[in-house]
Parts: sequence; structure tokens; C-alpha cells
Amino acid sequence: MTALVTPEQRLIALGIVLPAAAAPAANYVPSVAMHGLLHISGQIPFDDSGKPLRGRLGADMDIAAGAAAARRCAINLVAQMKAALGELDRVERIVKLGVFVNSTPDFTDQPEVGNGASDFMVAVFGDAGRHARSAVGVAVLPRGVAVEVDAIIAIRG
Amino acid sequence: MTALVTPEQRLIALGIVLPAAAAPAANYVPSVAMHGLLHISGQIPFDDSGKPLRGRLGADMDIAAGAAAARRCAINLVAQMKAALGELDRVERIVKLGVFVNSTPDFTDQPEVGNGASDFMVAVFGDAGRHARSAVGVAVLPRGVAVEVDAIIAIRG
Amino acid sequence: MTALVTPEQRLIALGIVLPAAAAPAANYVPSVAMHGLLHISGQIPFDDSGKPLRGRLGADMDIAAGAAAARRCAINLVAQMKAALGELDRVERIVKLGVFVNSTPDFTDQPEVGNGASDFMVAVFGDAGRHARSAVGVAVLPRGVAVEVDAIIAIRG
Repeated sequence: MTALVTPEQRLIALGIVLPAAAAPAANYVPSVAMHGLLHISGQIPFDDSGKPLRGRLGADMDIAAGAAAARRCAINLVAQMKAALGELDRVERIVKLGVFVNSTPDFTDQPEVGNGASDFMVAVFGDAGRHARSAVGVAVLPRGVAVEVDAIIAIRG
Repeated sequence: MTALVTPEQRLIALGIVLPAAAAPAANYVPSVAMHGLLHISGQIPFDDSGKPLRGRLGADMDIAAGAAAARRCAINLVAQMKAALGELDRVERIVKLGVFVNSTPDFTDQPEVGNGASDFMVAVFGDAGRHARSAVGVAVLPRGVAVEVDAIIAIRG
Repeated sequence: MTALVTPEQRLIALGIVLPAAAAPAANYVPSVAMHGLLHISGQIPFDDSGKPLRGRLGADMDIAAGAAAARRCAINLVAQMKAALGELDRVERIVKLGVFVNSTPDFTDQPEVGNGASDFMVAVFGDAGRHARSAVGVAVLPRGVAVEVDAIIAIRG
């Protein structure tokens, strides 16, 4: 089944060039597909120079910057889908995003930060990009990054 | 396959009227069903006036109040199941609950808080309500609520 | 399908005697298998005397001790697989680990802590042990333990 407009074409329209999918770090892998579901490892954001995008919401990063960081996580998730599946049309549905926001104890707008990732999924996959989600504030994230997002994807064939 | 006592009948016996399932917020949806599993978005608790039930365990909320908040999250999860499935008899099994408890760094009774959600699932679904679970303490949650719970459900048909 | 070397044989070679699988606490269960996936409850580490292994990374526990605690969580996950499946050869793939690290706000080496669990899975299951993973820092964990790890496993038959 081929969409009239492919996710790859939507990426071009958005001006997005997928980065190289992050290589396996240590003894875990970027994604595992079993029983029709692709589980993708938590993705962190990198800045344009390839360095981890650090920050803490409620301290040194505002909501807009946090949402932009979440969008970068989502771009990296799509890069992992492309690496695992070849063609993004094999994405049947974005099932679930888990959004972890590096937050001070008084920052409570995690949903608005997470929207940076959610909006990107719908921009690329249309209705198939509409997903279930949880968003929580955590004390700290690897490398001090602002956001980490993992995902469960339903795949065709 | 119909249970002798339906989950809906158990809800009545418990005196629970399911709230309206929370509407989609932004570009995510309350739940997604694929390959026999329904993934439900993280649900937060609301008080009787419909306002987010705020609090932090170890600071301004005790275990009993935290467990009551977790139970409200579970009621909202069941409301989402009802909205997605029509009949709660289509719930084959509550597979997994993810319990996130808004906690000070010295509060360590997350399991007792989570039991508010777990006990409710068994009260409504019987043995089919017995689930795997993780429970962790997080720095903060959306809107300052005390607990957030997401879920994976196995469905019939 | 039987591996030439079984996971049980690898455990012996590693000198690991699986502990008794932790009994169900309250109204949740250690694991639930549905639609080919086994969801295992979050496992916490215990010391040799059976007491919860407490600690906070960035405060009173270093990375090596944190990784050792994560390895103990992984051993407990394998004990739950054995209890649920009988033979560990029924593990088709370790799909996903969720690693929660009890962290001060300035500790950012959660991946190195998580490797204690990831390395153990590969030591026991070989390539089938290579999994997707998320690792985050949380404010606090049940009983004050240093690490909690939950898992999704694909099973045969």
C-alpha cells in the first residue's frame, strides 16, 4: 500500500534531511522489530555541530527551545525508522511516544515540550503519525540533554 | 466470550461513573490499537471539579492521597478503554501499567501509591486486571499533578 | 529451535545462580505474556543478604557500583523469564529495556549505568540479547534503590 504522498516526500517539503541514524552504543541497538512492532531506543537531540543539546526546562531553557529539542529527537526517531525499514511507507502507525523532559521540580509544561515531537510525526506521516503518548519530567537525562523520546511503531509486511 | 459479570457491572457495583474520556490534546491521541495491543496515553488525575489534582509525595501529599490520585488515573484509563473499545469485555488482559509518581528525592513508597491504580484494575477486570507494572519517582509531572499512569492492554477481536 | 549453547548453560559459565523470582507484590504480577510479547515488571536490585540495594548516582554511588546494581536488576529480569517460560530458549529476543537511574540533577552517565544490564543480556542470550533501550535519570526509586529496569521480551511458541 503506497500513500499518495510518501513520508520521504513530506520530509523534502519540510526541508528535513535525515541525519545518519545514531550507531549502536554498547550492547544495545537502535531498534528491534518483533511481532509487527518496532521498538526504538530513546533518542536524544544533537545540535547542528553534532553535540548533545543540553538544557533543563525551568532553568536554562524555555518551552520553545524545549519543543525544538523534542523535534530533533523525533527527527532522529524517523532516521532510525528509515535505517530499520528502508522505506518509511512501511510505517503503518506511530503507536506510542515516551517523552522524558529534563525539568526543574517547578516546571509543569511537559506536554507543550512534547508537542515538538508529536507535531513532527503528524507532519511526516499524516494521520498515521497520530500516536498515544506519555510525557513526564525527569531529574536529569544522559549527557545533560533537554529531552529524550522513545517510540513504538507498527510496521507493514 | 462474555464474562459472567461484566466490567461494566463491576463499575456499577463500585459506584463508579466513568468520566468523559479526555479529548485528544494537540497532535496525539488517547489510545492506539495495533496488533492486538491497545497503547493508552498517560492519564493524569482530576479532582471532582475537573481541575488537575496537584501534589508531590513527600511534600504536600501523603500515601493515601497519592493512592487515591493513582486510582483516579486508573478510572481515566478505563474511560479511554471504553471509548476505544465500546464494551469493556473486549479487554482480554491489562498487560502493563507505567506509574510515574511526583516525588521528593526522599520519598520511596511509589509502590504503595501505584497500588491505588493496580487495585482498581483488579476490582474492575478480576484476574484479567492483574498486570505487570513499573513504578518510579519523577521530579515533576504535567500541570503539577501527583501521578501519571499509562497502560498497555491486550484486546479481543 | 534450540541454540547450540543454551542461556542456562551461559548462566552456569557466568557463575550465576538465578535467585527465586520475586513474588507478586499486591495486585500486580511479575510478568504478562500476550500476543508474543512478555512484559516484565520493573525489577529492583537486592544485595546478597536480600535487602534492597540503595544508592543515588552522583551522591553516594559511583558508576561502577551503579552498573553492578543494573546487572542485578537484569539477573532478576532473567529470573522472571525463567519463572514465566520454563526454558530460556523460549526467549526469541530481548526487545526493549527501560532503565531508570536514581540520580542527582547533575549526574549524566545513565548510559554507562544501564550497560550493566545490557551487557548481561548479551552475555546470556548472545545476539538475541541485543535490545532497544531507554535510560533516564529519575528523582527517586522505590525503597531508595539505585536502579530499576523493566523489559519487553519476544517469545517463541
